[in-house]
Amino acid sequence: MELDRNGLVVLDREECLRLLAGAHLGRLGVSMSALPVVLPVNYAFDGDAIVVRTATGTKFDAALAGAVVAFEVDDIDPMYQTGWSVMVQGLTEVVRDEAALERTQRLPLRAWASPEADQFVRITIERVSGRRIVHDRVPVAAAAQ
Amino acid sequence: MELDRNGLVVLDREECLRLLAGAHLGRLGVSMSALPVVLPVNYAFDGDAIVVRTATGTKFDAALAGAVVAFEVDDIDPMYQTGWSVMVQGLTEVVRDEAALERTQRLPLRAWASPEADQFVRITIERVSGRRIVHDRVPVAAAAQ
Repeated sequence: MELDRNGLVVLDREECLRLLAGAHLGRLGVSMSALPVVLPVNYAFDGDAIVVRTATGTKFDAALAGAVVAFEVDDIDPMYQTGWSVMVQGLTEVVRDEAALERTQRLPLRAWASPEADQFVRITIERVSGRRIVHDRVPVAAAAQ
Repeated sequence: MELDRNGLVVLDREECLRLLAGAHLGRLGVSMSALPVVLPVNYAFDGDAIVVRTATGTKFDAALAGAVVAFEVDDIDPMYQTGWSVMVQGLTEVVRDEAALERTQRLPLRAWASPEADQFVRITIERVSGRRIVHDRVPVAAAAQ
């Protein structure tokens, strides 16, 4: 078990991909109008890439045009501070190829609220890293006292 | 009730700050070595700023030196896709002033795993925005079929 310098357990790539495959909600970090933005988004993992949906013509869609992004997925118990976090860093690409679009449309993926989210964007996995937080199990509220 | 173009309910500043005050876990978006990074972090809200802890000398600490960051807090039910998300964009500043440090040290704030997290960093709230997702309540799994 490898620990990082903060005492968190380092997850290997295989474990990171397994955790990505099992969740649907992530937080996307991207620049919009030269400012960093973090947004919760639904996603699907197709084995090679993170897939999200956008509505053509939105600021979000424009920000995802050929961008370098971070995509973070976690499951953390805020009280006991145990859980895991996986982060992908990659490049975005709009899915345009017909065969790829057809495959993508079969993924269990819905965009919130927006029926206009007609575009699929893939985030390639250039780097993936993950940590597991195995903590001393003192609830935060108690520790703060 | 104001809706954005995706049909999400726009939260006013007061509601955003109320939601920030009631949570402890957020996701910080920042650049590290010229790449976007999103990390889950504990925080406290002191009424004016988001406060996080870092360990001096780490890459994370260096990235937070006078940076422009995004800080996102949410509570989303991934199955029913209801919930809220608030995002702060602001500037980081290390707390050095003795009186401020003393106040800050009384906040209920712990850094994960790292006993060396000796430094407090404030994220000023230059901009805050929030959305509430009031959805049609079809579970994701059902909608995907």
